[in-house]
Amino acid sequence: MSIRRLPEATVARLPVYLRVLTETTEATISSDHLAAGAGVNAAQVRKDLSHLGSYGTRGVGYDVAYLVRQISRQLGLSADRRVAIVGVGNLGHALARYGGFAARGFQVVAAFDVDPRTVGQRVGGVLVEPFDRLAEVVSGKGVELALLTTPAAAAQAATDALVAAGVNSILNFAPARVAAPAHVAVRQVDLGVELQILCYYGLQAAAGLTAYDAVDAAGS
Amino acid sequence: MSIRRLPEATVARLPVYLRVLTETTEATISSDHLAAGAGVNAAQVRKDLSHLGSYGTRGVGYDVAYLVRQISRQLGLSADRRVAIVGVGNLGHALARYGGFAARGFQVVAAFDVDPRTVGQRVGGVLVEPFDRLAEVVSGKGVELALLTTPAAAAQAATDALVAAGVNSILNFAPARVAAPAHVAVRQVDLGVELQILCYYGLQAAAGLTAYDAVDAAGS
Repeated sequence: MSIRRLPEATVARLPVYLRVLTETTEATISSDHLAAGAGVNAAQVRKDLSHLGSYGTRGVGYDVAYLVRQISRQLGLSADRRVAIVGVGNLGHALARYGGFAARGFQVVAAFDVDPRTVGQRVGGVLVEPFDRLAEVVSGKGVELALLTTPAAAAQAATDALVAAGVNSILNFAPARVAAPAHVAVRQVDLGVELQILCYYGLQAAAGLTAYDAVDAAGS
Repeated sequence: MSIRRLPEATVARLPVYLRVLTETTEATISSDHLAAGAGVNAAQVRKDLSHLGSYGTRGVGYDVAYLVRQISRQLGLSADRRVAIVGVGNLGHALARYGGFAARGFQVVAAFDVDPRTVGQRVGGVLVEPFDRLAEVVSGKGVELALLTTPAAAAQAATDALVAAGVNSILNFAPARVAAPAHVAVRQVDLGVELQILCYYGLQAAAGLTAYDAVDAAGS
């Protein structure tokens, strides 16, 4: 199967389907069941999965093991992915200890900081290395993804160093936009924006409007 | 203007437009300019804003001040919103000190924890109160939104307490789904899912595919 280009909203729902699939103990699953677990409707599930060329079997549903492999491959999750944290402040600490990564095949294997008081510490079992060893450690440990948790002022320099070291996927938590070459994917997690979106759905919910799309924000 | 029901993707882009608008020093802005700042195309901007009944003026663009008011009102941001943090571990600490909230009209006014070693501390200028004072403090300080950063096992009890105290908007960072009544909006921020989505866009970018929708994930 080749990696298909998918609608943005479908990409955002695939990891949620994947979680439901990995939590079920059945060998097959209906679109209704998958939809209920993911908080969407069954027609949406069928449409999303049809983008992967997966149509299920009438009266039986989808083969769980096959669908897990198909979604994982589509998302590029076939192998364990190694992650580095750049910037070990409060957020970096929190992410180093975050339980939700390992369960999804991500392993935090490196952390970097410029502060000599932080360098040499262990966070979540990982040694904090000095920032100027980034290229060496990224290469030695096979890091593919980075969590950028530096202050805003340091975000671009950290991005440049990651790109130079060969990291092509960056999740940016710093409150600053960063520029990167076209072959590098940068996703910005802006928690202020998340709160603003929440405000809207809070108003909708309080007004008693149907909130079928109000629950699932950044994935789950 | 009433609060309209909008497509989910439009709601997610409005805060991004708002940021571009508040950063410009011009009195008017073209859809091209707004699109460039938000990382989308101009047709998308015009379509999104048409949902608000805003069409701009041909050859002039949109009135910046008017559009800021219109988007803010649509998102329910007209007044400063008071936020509480429930669970002051690493992530709670990080969020208490996160610079991106105040800039967008959110003020962290309260924090709660069950750990006696954490209660009584100040994080980001806010006193950590014992969890059993939640109802009293939420009511006294007019808290409207909550950031849920407890361990998974405590998330539902914390949600129940928040709902009982009258909070109707919850941003859930705990790695657990929580149930809430229909008048309460819950958005889940699942960072493992964010990483899985990033993987997909990393593959796309590395393969040289156009990544017009690969940059803007959770808002920015």
